[in-house]
Amino acid sequence: MSEEHQIDEHLPEEPEEGSYALEKRAVTAILYAVDVGDAEQLKELMEPLHAADIADLLEQLNTYDRRRLVELYDREFDGEILSELDEGIREEIISVLKPHVLAEAVREMDSDDVVDLVEDLDEPQQEAILEALEDADRVAVEQALTYPEYSAGRLMQREVVTAPEHWTVGDAIDFLRNAEELPDQFYHVILVDPRMHPIGNVTLGKLMSSRRTVPLKDIVEDVFQVIPVTQYEGDVAYAFNQYHLISAPVVDEADRLVGVITIDDAMAVLDEEHEEDILRLAGVSDEASLSDTILEAAKGRALWLFVNLLTAILASLVIDIFAETINQMVALAVLMPIVASMGGNAGTQTMTVTVRALATRDLTAQNAMRVVGREVSVGALNGVLFGLIMALVAGFWFGAPMLAAVIGVAMLLTQVSAAIGGIVIPMALDRFGIDPALASGPFVTTVTDVVGFSAFLGLAASVMM
Amino acid sequence: MSEEHQIDEHLPEEPEEGSYALEKRAVTAILYAVDVGDAEQLKELMEPLHAADIADLLEQLNTYDRRRLVELYDREFDGEILSELDEGIREEIISVLKPHVLAEAVREMDSDDVVDLVEDLDEPQQEAILEALEDADRVAVEQALTYPEYSAGRLMQREVVTAPEHWTVGDAIDFLRNAEELPDQFYHVILVDPRMHPIGNVTLGKLMSSRRTVPLKDIVEDVFQVIPVTQYEGDVAYAFNQYHLISAPVVDEADRLVGVITIDDAMAVLDEEHEEDILRLAGVSDEASLSDTILEAAKGRALWLFVNLLTAILASLVIDIFAETINQMVALAVLMPIVASMGGNAGTQTMTVTVRALATRDLTAQNAMRVVGREVSVGALNGVLFGLIMALVAGFWFGAPMLAAVIGVAMLLTQVSAAIGGIVIPMALDRFGIDPALASGPFVTTVTDVVGFSAFLGLAASVMM
Repeated sequence: MSEEHQIDEHLPEEPEEGSYALEKRAVTAILYAVDVGDAEQLKELMEPLHAADIADLLEQLNTYDRRRLVELYDREFDGEILSELDEGIREEIISVLKPHVLAEAVREMDSDDVVDLVEDLDEPQQEAILEALEDADRVAVEQALTYPEYSAGRLMQREVVTAPEHWTVGDAIDFLRNAEELPDQFYHVILVDPRMHPIGNVTLGKLMSSRRTVPLKDIVEDVFQVIPVTQYEGDVAYAFNQYHLISAPVVDEADRLVGVITIDDAMAVLDEEHEEDILRLAGVSDEASLSDTILEAAKGRALWLFVNLLTAILASLVIDIFAETINQMVALAVLMPIVASMGGNAGTQTMTVTVRALATRDLTAQNAMRVVGREVSVGALNGVLFGLIMALVAGFWFGAPMLAAVIGVAMLLTQVSAAIGGIVIPMALDRFGIDPALASGPFVTTVTDVVGFSAFLGLAASVMM
Repeated sequence: MSEEHQIDEHLPEEPEEGSYALEKRAVTAILYAVDVGDAEQLKELMEPLHAADIADLLEQLNTYDRRRLVELYDREFDGEILSELDEGIREEIISVLKPHVLAEAVREMDSDDVVDLVEDLDEPQQEAILEALEDADRVAVEQALTYPEYSAGRLMQREVVTAPEHWTVGDAIDFLRNAEELPDQFYHVILVDPRMHPIGNVTLGKLMSSRRTVPLKDIVEDVFQVIPVTQYEGDVAYAFNQYHLISAPVVDEADRLVGVITIDDAMAVLDEEHEEDILRLAGVSDEASLSDTILEAAKGRALWLFVNLLTAILASLVIDIFAETINQMVALAVLMPIVASMGGNAGTQTMTVTVRALATRDLTAQNAMRVVGREVSVGALNGVLFGLIMALVAGFWFGAPMLAAVIGVAMLLTQVSAAIGGIVIPMALDRFGIDPALASGPFVTTVTDVVGFSAFLGLAASVMM
């Protein structure tokens, strides 16, 4: 028995489908309540759910059920659910909500959440929401909207807790104990000089555990990063992840404190950036979500398919040059997709590693040449390996030693070109300020297809004909 | 001038290469100090750098420079740098460090960081580090290692700050003010019942701003998630991101508090999981990093290239069936890669959206059928669009109306099959507990290649010959 127990302890719980997903039974009960129009029952069933889970539920329903649920839930619908919703669904729900329900929902929200909400909305919906806000909040939101989209200014909250640099622990504790109002969530007291330049962070834990006479200056955190208000949000997320920040002060052009960003917002940005990268690498426009309409989704993908069509036609033009050669030896037509497919895959591998290394700043001017060399070596190594395998396969299949030699060499050339294309193209795009995740794919495929087909058919034409 | 200023304010700062990347000048100066063997100068140059940046720098150097730098830096080398290093480089550096430097570096580290360090090491290195620890720390690390790899137990820190559920704000403040030792970083006081079951979180901020007589129970956070100690770390990261948690108590099988996980650790896991997904989707084994050796990297990619070779050969077998048809009309050989390439790309798009939606729990049993229907519609829509385009292209290119019709229909069929394969295959793999990011690619490509070639060549054979 003790052995069994030990085995259990050493196996991680499988990432089951069920963990943190909404329980099917709960969803069924909720849909039933909506179906029969039982508002009381619906309210009771929704009560224990976190706003993020309610948002997920709404996203998973069809438009009809979603609308009915929102109407029945009515006044219970709060701002937090709105902030958690996907953009498309959010607009749809805002247009369904009664004006007074929407107004109340928005009034409950923190100003940085309202900013996040209104920045994606159409003009009329934006105005409706701004009008619902109290004057002070509206001004705060409007001010935040003057910062560039995707900048630290849009992410930050304006409520900060500061202390003059000469204060002691006792001063800070007395101040906090007597403060009329403190932000909902804060983790640091920010030390500022008389001109409001932030100079250090003191954690509340350190404050709690230090003697009253200790100067705050003596217990500031070792790691202190100040974020410029116009910094791109992706860089903010990178800084939080790289330096393990919990919160960081945001400063304007004169280095004066204007707000604070906390790690939960940075984590959400990191998540979005990853989503963008992964979808862009696959040639899906980054607005894509399961709640897009069919037409939106088709449009988002058609663009990249169209680019791919052009590169595919280019590759076909290469094949066309060798039409006569193929006519004389149909085995070439049978084998040529293998060369292209292997090249495309190797190119995608190298390209993905490169895009990822650029995003994490692991690939820099410092090590660029070495990494290119490494990738080419990897390509050559796998080129030799798969060149030999394919030479054997082709040799046995078609019983033509010359054909075997040709496909082997073509494979090697294609793998090396895939490595070069896969690393040089994203690096060049990055250098020119173009997102390598978005644009590398078609270029890399063009390289591998053109090299693959020309090498294979060209060698065949010159050696075998 | 004011106009210029406004424009500046409305444009986000470009995500420049330089932001948070190591400055080239600093790197050059450091390398120079290493070159001339100036330990003093090296120490001075490294002083302002964060451990994470030093780790990045070490990763970007070649083996020779790295070894020389570590030897010269000697006693300054601390545990934090070790924790920030990539696994491969870390093992290399541990083998270079003098035993007493390693011992001291490890003794400075928090026990959860030591766990993170030793779990990836070989047996002898692991023992060397465990021996360097003080007894209490060694026991803590060894205990953590009894939890499954990738579980909450490995992520958590054991130092927690708790308060009995009946305490008031005043009790908690007095306790904290008088505590001998508090953890370095903590954000919540965890309320526990007499059997150490966690029942709520009180933020330090709320504690600070509440009156002494208020019961702690009245100011607990609304959102409270308890993490089972054996939970998979990916699910832990999901919970932090979904519920905007800052820290969460970890409980054993009897629901007793055993530790706490903080958001910075969850953020690191989220980042790793994304990296894994993105690399796996591209067919790169997930240990891949720029510091892998050429042989390691080639091996990690060869496996997937080999699987791809098998599917490519399968597709070639399909072409071989129609060799006679191609012999009669070489235009088929010229056009067929277009059909396959477009199918492969559409399949990758759908597959990536599906894998991502499964990871974020946006695709569930609840909406599966609707999402499948949506994807098939998207595929059909783009199939019709690109079928028409290719029919026109082929018609003009080869002047053969029948060939135009054939490629148009083949394109439609391939796009629809790409949509079905792209969503059904990852969903099926997920259902059987196989990571869809790792295994979907080859299957989807097989479907699109086989359908693409058979549809195009099969239609051509039956209609045109």
